[in-house]
Amino acid sequence: MLLSGFSRLSVPCERFRVTYQLQGTEDEVYDRAKDICLEQTVEFPEEFIPEGLIKEHIVGQIESFESYEDNRFLVVISYAIDSAANELTQLFNVIFGNISIKPGIRVEHIELPDALLKNFKGPRFGREGLRELLGVKKRPLIFTALKPMGLTSQELAELAYQFALGGIDIIKDDHGLSNQSFSPYEERVSLCSEAVKKANQETGYHSIYVTNITGPVQEVKKRAITAKERGAGGVLISPGLIGFDMMREIAEDDQIALPVISHPAFLGSYVMGTSGLSHHTLFGQMVRLAGADGTIYPNFGGRFSFSRSECENIVQGTEIPMGNLKPIFPCPAGGMSLASVPESLKVYGNEVAFLIGGGLFKQGPDLIANSRYFRELAERLSE
Amino acid sequence: MLLSGFSRLSVPCERFRVTYQLQGTEDEVYDRAKDICLEQTVEFPEEFIPEGLIKEHIVGQIESFESYEDNRFLVVISYAIDSAANELTQLFNVIFGNISIKPGIRVEHIELPDALLKNFKGPRFGREGLRELLGVKKRPLIFTALKPMGLTSQELAELAYQFALGGIDIIKDDHGLSNQSFSPYEERVSLCSEAVKKANQETGYHSIYVTNITGPVQEVKKRAITAKERGAGGVLISPGLIGFDMMREIAEDDQIALPVISHPAFLGSYVMGTSGLSHHTLFGQMVRLAGADGTIYPNFGGRFSFSRSECENIVQGTEIPMGNLKPIFPCPAGGMSLASVPESLKVYGNEVAFLIGGGLFKQGPDLIANSRYFRELAERLSE
Repeated sequence: MLLSGFSRLSVPCERFRVTYQLQGTEDEVYDRAKDICLEQTVEFPEEFIPEGLIKEHIVGQIESFESYEDNRFLVVISYAIDSAANELTQLFNVIFGNISIKPGIRVEHIELPDALLKNFKGPRFGREGLRELLGVKKRPLIFTALKPMGLTSQELAELAYQFALGGIDIIKDDHGLSNQSFSPYEERVSLCSEAVKKANQETGYHSIYVTNITGPVQEVKKRAITAKERGAGGVLISPGLIGFDMMREIAEDDQIALPVISHPAFLGSYVMGTSGLSHHTLFGQMVRLAGADGTIYPNFGGRFSFSRSECENIVQGTEIPMGNLKPIFPCPAGGMSLASVPESLKVYGNEVAFLIGGGLFKQGPDLIANSRYFRELAERLSE
Repeated sequence: MLLSGFSRLSVPCERFRVTYQLQGTEDEVYDRAKDICLEQTVEFPEEFIPEGLIKEHIVGQIESFESYEDNRFLVVISYAIDSAANELTQLFNVIFGNISIKPGIRVEHIELPDALLKNFKGPRFGREGLRELLGVKKRPLIFTALKPMGLTSQELAELAYQFALGGIDIIKDDHGLSNQSFSPYEERVSLCSEAVKKANQETGYHSIYVTNITGPVQEVKKRAITAKERGAGGVLISPGLIGFDMMREIAEDDQIALPVISHPAFLGSYVMGTSGLSHHTLFGQMVRLAGADGTIYPNFGGRFSFSRSECENIVQGTEIPMGNLKPIFPCPAGGMSLASVPESLKVYGNEVAFLIGGGLFKQGPDLIANSRYFRELAERLSE
């Protein structure tokens, strides 16, 4: 039989670290941590792992192990950066691929050395770049969505025009607007980009239209290039639907070079229970690693179920030091109302983009006036 | 204000149907079902939805509502096929995009009319095509994996050679083999394809090497084409890492035209709790819709936690009528041993591909003999 070992692993290996939350008694958890070390790397019976570099470097290593609550432990496991192949897909695979199928394991935090981070450009704009683009120095950004699905492109463009006249910074497609017969992509991106441009000429503001390019694999980049050509100010991507690596690819593309906003559609299952990914890692660290400049998620107190502390956990992920990766905007959404802005500001401070969609219609029949009110609120409260 | 309606929706709209399991009292569940109808389509306050086609067609419709257990209800909601824009990404978005972030909602089943299904070619080979390719008429397919990560391409190829000599039908890369320094993709696919070809010449069998092409977006298709050129017999894709639509794109590509096997890495969170997707829908229907010819998942009784009935639920998804989509192979795996084959056969019958990886090493030091034993077992038990 073979399995004699190998010689091309870079030694000494640099390692990246993943903090897992595990549940059970101390003995159970220790056994499960050892199991993760194998499952996420060699996926092979321990007794047959060849001596040498595979056992010493490829197999995950328990770096620390601490109890932090009854029957809950935080375990840090390190992996050789070589195992991630300098690829986002394989990095996510080592972090949580197979063990996503085992109950009671949650990724709390990831810590990546520069030798691994250097493979990812991360957010092109980040908070600072987006503020510069929008001409907003200090206050929270204000953000809305074009909806409902079923309107024509002309109607959506008219909405975009009104929002921009009222001074909304970022006007995005609802994430369900794709390439439907009633609002085909090319038509919509052209009309909405034009509408926002026209409004900017009247107001002197720098509002941007962010168009949803989530769609078939072979269309995403084409739609991004069309967006650039037609004058859209950014793109919206749902990585749960099209993959984190597609978001990275678009964000890193110098031909496109537009701000990227991440939408959480189809990702909720990762944060619904005691298994999965922490809010911090998923909506903060992973979204940022994949190059988004802003991360949309449901705010506390809205029509979804995230708690205040889970939202704080996301904010941390958007700004915690990660090598050269820029901090990005948390974009709390999901049933936010204008009335909830003051309370939310206490949590977020000024480094936030408040996304109010349907709530902006509830204020009154005049969307321009509602938008102005939103802007004034953000200006007043941030002073 | 506008929102005057629109005229391009195809009327009468055909609709697709999603069965959700919801928990709560009857009143709560009914309210939540109504909420899903809005959340997954217009995502807009009900009072502002324009009269006419949006309200009548775009908004989801409750088709049926039945209690099936204490506090559990099965609710069928239909959506206009126009809302899915003939795109897999947008279809998945309408089925479960935003509501993935709401607790207590599980997709049990999807039912798509031909007018929608016609946009997806589905599995190119399916069960019948794969049997023909492998020259296996009746017995279960036998399937193994090249591992552990960290071996050189030469060592992996030597393993592939031995497995093929022993008559294993499908020999795949471990799903963690990507493009690591110790086994770069091009080298590995060339050496392993050659090794299996050489063994086939000696045995007269039709074993195939299935290479893992999950990787960066811009690399996946290139790797698939390289696989084709170097003589690999199929490709392995983890849709949880690279997206279901990438799998569809590869499966539908006539230049590639290789069997596609789906791996469940990073998908587990969808089936871990009472929220998410059913095993049937995720590992059966969705994988099949995205064009895979085989779907890998952890078998009952192995080192993962799927139950026997959850596995039966997957099998159902692989073969339930879905327009022109071919039935595909369930590929139970995850700590399967040779000893577990007879019990598993009772569940699966012959229409299965048993994936035994590490377990094949446990049988004894001679991998060729172990592989032969596996094959004989499959032949004997299926008579």
